[in-house]
Amino acid sequence: MTTIHTIQQRISAAFNAEQFLYEPMRLYTPINYTLELGGKRIRPALVLLSCDLFGGDIEKAVYPAMGLEIFHNFTLLHDDIMDHASLRRGKETVHKKWDVNTAILSGDTMFVMAYDYVAKTDPILLPDVLRLFNDTARKVCEGQQYDMNFETESQVTIPEYMKMIRLKTAVLIACSLKLGALIAGALHDDATKIYDFGIELGLAFQLQDDYLDAFGDTSVFGKEIGGDIATNKKTFLNLKAFELAHGDDLIQLTHYFTDPNIPAKEKIVGVTHLYRKNNVEEATRHEIEVHFQKAKLILESLDISEDRKSEIHNLALGMVGRMK
Amino acid sequence: MTTIHTIQQRISAAFNAEQFLYEPMRLYTPINYTLELGGKRIRPALVLLSCDLFGGDIEKAVYPAMGLEIFHNFTLLHDDIMDHASLRRGKETVHKKWDVNTAILSGDTMFVMAYDYVAKTDPILLPDVLRLFNDTARKVCEGQQYDMNFETESQVTIPEYMKMIRLKTAVLIACSLKLGALIAGALHDDATKIYDFGIELGLAFQLQDDYLDAFGDTSVFGKEIGGDIATNKKTFLNLKAFELAHGDDLIQLTHYFTDPNIPAKEKIVGVTHLYRKNNVEEATRHEIEVHFQKAKLILESLDISEDRKSEIHNLALGMVGRMK
Repeated sequence: MTTIHTIQQRISAAFNAEQFLYEPMRLYTPINYTLELGGKRIRPALVLLSCDLFGGDIEKAVYPAMGLEIFHNFTLLHDDIMDHASLRRGKETVHKKWDVNTAILSGDTMFVMAYDYVAKTDPILLPDVLRLFNDTARKVCEGQQYDMNFETESQVTIPEYMKMIRLKTAVLIACSLKLGALIAGALHDDATKIYDFGIELGLAFQLQDDYLDAFGDTSVFGKEIGGDIATNKKTFLNLKAFELAHGDDLIQLTHYFTDPNIPAKEKIVGVTHLYRKNNVEEATRHEIEVHFQKAKLILESLDISEDRKSEIHNLALGMVGRMK
Repeated sequence: MTTIHTIQQRISAAFNAEQFLYEPMRLYTPINYTLELGGKRIRPALVLLSCDLFGGDIEKAVYPAMGLEIFHNFTLLHDDIMDHASLRRGKETVHKKWDVNTAILSGDTMFVMAYDYVAKTDPILLPDVLRLFNDTARKVCEGQQYDMNFETESQVTIPEYMKMIRLKTAVLIACSLKLGALIAGALHDDATKIYDFGIELGLAFQLQDDYLDAFGDTSVFGKEIGGDIATNKKTFLNLKAFELAHGDDLIQLTHYFTDPNIPAKEKIVGVTHLYRKNNVEEATRHEIEVHFQKAKLILESLDISEDRKSEIHNLALGMVGRMK
């Protein structure tokens, strides 16, 4: 069994060993910049952990795992253009540091690179691996579109929101785990189970992200609290609040989210107060727990010794209980 | 042997048989719009013609051929954002008709769709097919970057320009032909030859495009003449003119391309006159001919009966001798 620590070191080493600088430099410098920013590298870790869980050789999973990480970073790069985001991981986004054209084209190139790395797998597995990756990439695009649609839709339901985060976030977590399973030669049923585990884990992970935006600790979270509130983003918390609040609280909540003249700080404090008062914090923690428990049940159902599952279980726990 | 007419009908039928409309509609409507605009569908025709040339079953090439056409349309969609183009095939571009975010994300989705279709091939061939497609897609991105770089570079040489159009245009023509050969199970050497044929043909094709911008007939070309001149685009003609012109002509040419106050019509007439006077028209026709002859020699070197080659030869002739 390989520890999560060893796996994270292996992934760092793999990224450090690659040079992403080729000609033309104006195309590859932003790519190298993006990939050097790092991040938590959760997706490749899941690929390797899952491969190891099913008794596979993690070395065979390193390149495809890198492919998923490159794909993830490509989506962030294009999402940042669409969201007009200035910062990513504490640094200027590519379209700010360079320009929109550079961000579009460097992103497109990263997408090809992702396919390049994903394809570095046993040719026998390639059709299944490619089908999984294509299906995932397609869903991630669809999820991003639903997320953009929400900006202009007045009525978004919680099931619609859950569908969106399933597509935008959870399927890539699930794909990472299934990819590791495929490379390890896991049974079809087991590969499906670990995918379903990933879906539930991914939902819990995204809900935790929503939660931290309102209730995280700035010093740990690493970014300003309340960004989603300030920008009227439709998150689980926002939608749940409109479901739970009544009377004066509902009026106040509506006021905060419709009057553009309220200063951001006042709005964040006011909305967070209403979230707590109307049990939105509790409801969110409950929803995270529901999905995390579902994930755990699926993991338990796998016919693998418990101690082999401990590393993946611990990483999952970290993803959902994380404070940043 | 299958005629080009039959092949074009097969491709039209294949596109007509597919629905590109799924949920979310805001994502897929622009994709459907783009793919319905049609265009000449040269690349999928080349895939099928090449497959047929090497004695393959063209039915096995239809989906991968569609994949290349979808990829080509994806690149146009993103290029149009980068170039701020308003019209494509006489219709509003996606970023104009909808917005930039839609164009970015619909493009990304088309890119995944391209991989989906390209992957619909014999699993045995998939590693080679995917390697070819990844390599091509990467080069097309690099070519687009060089093209963008040229906008701000004062000194671009003709070899640099030829390298750019090789990457941006010729490799996809070459890839189309090689893809057909791979699907037909052609010998490695033959697949390489048809690729090299495609490179020369692609260069001639792009030079013809440059030529038509200045010397085409508006009523046949289907778009305004002189667009490249009006926008100071570095084309073969522009670079050749600065190489050939001396004395007063060079001064005048420089004046046309640096004084922003000259009305477009006057500039186009003046520059075209200087192009003719300094043998730029002739030099361009010569360069097209050089690459077309190289292509023909490679085609002749293939050990296949001449009459089997006639359809591909005729299409090539049409691509280079075209007036639109």
